[in-house]
Amino acid sequence: MPRIEPPYLLFLGDAADDAVAKTATGVAHWRPDSCVGEFALDGCGATTGLPRMTPTEAVAAGAKTLVVGVANAGGVIHPSWTRALHDALRAGLDLASGLHTHLASIPELRDEASRLGRTLHEVRVPPSDLDVGRGAPRPGRRLLTVGTDCSVGKMFTALAIERELRERGVRADFRATGQTGIFIAGEGIPIDAVVADFISGAAERLAPANDPDHWDVIEGQGSLFHPAYAGVSLGLLHGSQAEALVMCHEPTRTEMRGAPGRGLPSVPECIEANERAARLTEPRARVVAVAINTRALPASEAETCIATLARTTGLPCVDPLRHGVGPIVDGLLTR
Amino acid sequence: MPRIEPPYLLFLGDAADDAVAKTATGVAHWRPDSCVGEFALDGCGATTGLPRMTPTEAVAAGAKTLVVGVANAGGVIHPSWTRALHDALRAGLDLASGLHTHLASIPELRDEASRLGRTLHEVRVPPSDLDVGRGAPRPGRRLLTVGTDCSVGKMFTALAIERELRERGVRADFRATGQTGIFIAGEGIPIDAVVADFISGAAERLAPANDPDHWDVIEGQGSLFHPAYAGVSLGLLHGSQAEALVMCHEPTRTEMRGAPGRGLPSVPECIEANERAARLTEPRARVVAVAINTRALPASEAETCIATLARTTGLPCVDPLRHGVGPIVDGLLTR
Repeated sequence: MPRIEPPYLLFLGDAADDAVAKTATGVAHWRPDSCVGEFALDGCGATTGLPRMTPTEAVAAGAKTLVVGVANAGGVIHPSWTRALHDALRAGLDLASGLHTHLASIPELRDEASRLGRTLHEVRVPPSDLDVGRGAPRPGRRLLTVGTDCSVGKMFTALAIERELRERGVRADFRATGQTGIFIAGEGIPIDAVVADFISGAAERLAPANDPDHWDVIEGQGSLFHPAYAGVSLGLLHGSQAEALVMCHEPTRTEMRGAPGRGLPSVPECIEANERAARLTEPRARVVAVAINTRALPASEAETCIATLARTTGLPCVDPLRHGVGPIVDGLLTR
Repeated sequence: MPRIEPPYLLFLGDAADDAVAKTATGVAHWRPDSCVGEFALDGCGATTGLPRMTPTEAVAAGAKTLVVGVANAGGVIHPSWTRALHDALRAGLDLASGLHTHLASIPELRDEASRLGRTLHEVRVPPSDLDVGRGAPRPGRRLLTVGTDCSVGKMFTALAIERELRERGVRADFRATGQTGIFIAGEGIPIDAVVADFISGAAERLAPANDPDHWDVIEGQGSLFHPAYAGVSLGLLHGSQAEALVMCHEPTRTEMRGAPGRGLPSVPECIEANERAARLTEPRARVVAVAINTRALPASEAETCIATLARTTGLPCVDPLRHGVGPIVDGLLTR
């Protein structure tokens, strides 16, 4: 995948709320210096907090690429967006999308991009030359975020750890495995779109051999306990060969996302299962901390929840958004 | 996938030995009534035991489809085969291949098939409309073969169980997940070629809700202990929701296939891991028997090996090729 050129204009389409625009809000949060503004259609109820602008204004402000920041059901590019995306090409922007509908499948966009020499980045397309996993040891330090469920903060936690490591002068790279993470990093492999035979091979490619003091901080996906996605989670766990795992959890959730009626595993049960599975390819693998997304709780309840999990697991427990990940990184650097 | 029309002419290409032609030998073994003969190029050292014939002779004998029976490294269609495949189209045969190289990617074949109205079956292409897994209970009885490694007899065992069930008057269907199995069954889903997000959803599609007394006998893939393929194995395990698992094992193997230096798990360890993982979506899941491929052992050593595993596991242990799968099916029908 050619590198996506920042800075970005974040396209919100007609997203009803911030949840639908979560790719845009994630990029705006983590890469504010790479974003010049947002571009919304009539009826859009979402915002990243960045200034609204047209593609022409964005180009004048230095933008190089329009990023489709919508994560809608089905991953579709709505026909009502085509005119706006076409205008962005004419204004001088490349386009980038992580949706299932490919930009290049829309003739007006494909032809106009070709005519103008612009690039259409399809972020949800994995490399075509992946190999199967080997499971052989490789140098470099690696951390993978894992979870009790989908959408519990695995990307956020990995990005927070990368930032904290770098702030302490440690060489570290966030390794993106999902569309939002790929936009934030500018590169990565959409692990859920890889052909099944190549899941662990893709993770080996994503976080290859590196210097002994360099950390790859790998964005996890799904959960070993999710009935739809556990295969992705296991292949990513095996290919990552991470010495350090960070368990991510959302304590108010009552059922697995997209699996009505199915409860979440307990945090200790999920820790044990991940350590056991990870040790197939990295015998030193250990869950070193728990990252708890307490956004849905008032502060006092959040502190109680975190303290309880710290007692239950005997591990450092933090909410990365409320407290940062200092205690997690303290632990990594004294290992 | 449109149904592949039997009977078949099995194409061996220039396969050096029977191992390279294992798709052809598997189809010839399990579907002798669907095969009229084999078609080999100069230099071929393999045979299925069927009569050799040209495509024209095969059509005269009733053949409808040429099946590419080669499973070579890289899954490629060698340029030296093109002429022979072209001749088969002209003789009146459809073509079917489970290799990574698509028949339709070869212009001479694509154009000739189009001109003549013949079908090119690409068996390694999964359905394009798969959904993610749900993990919800569904009626019907299901069995999945699992393994300590790849290529230990999971397809053979599943086919033997389907046959034995049918011979006893029980309604049963083999559900194919790999290229050879798909040729044998005439349908199926190549689970290793599915996009990672859809592994368990593909298994749910492959073995859908059925009558309460009907058995789906699902062909397993890989191993939970294989560093490259465990994600596929886990997704298939979760999506199959099988009440009965049969553990397949090859006792003379010293390292995992394709993973030099990595030993196999013990049979009890592998049984425990599979039962535990399977119970996420089917709480009744249990390994009910062990199928041991003792082809590499003399008869006396085979019997000793089987007796030892029977004592260790407390389960019925058989070599399906030497003994059939009667004891396994006895157990299924008394559950």
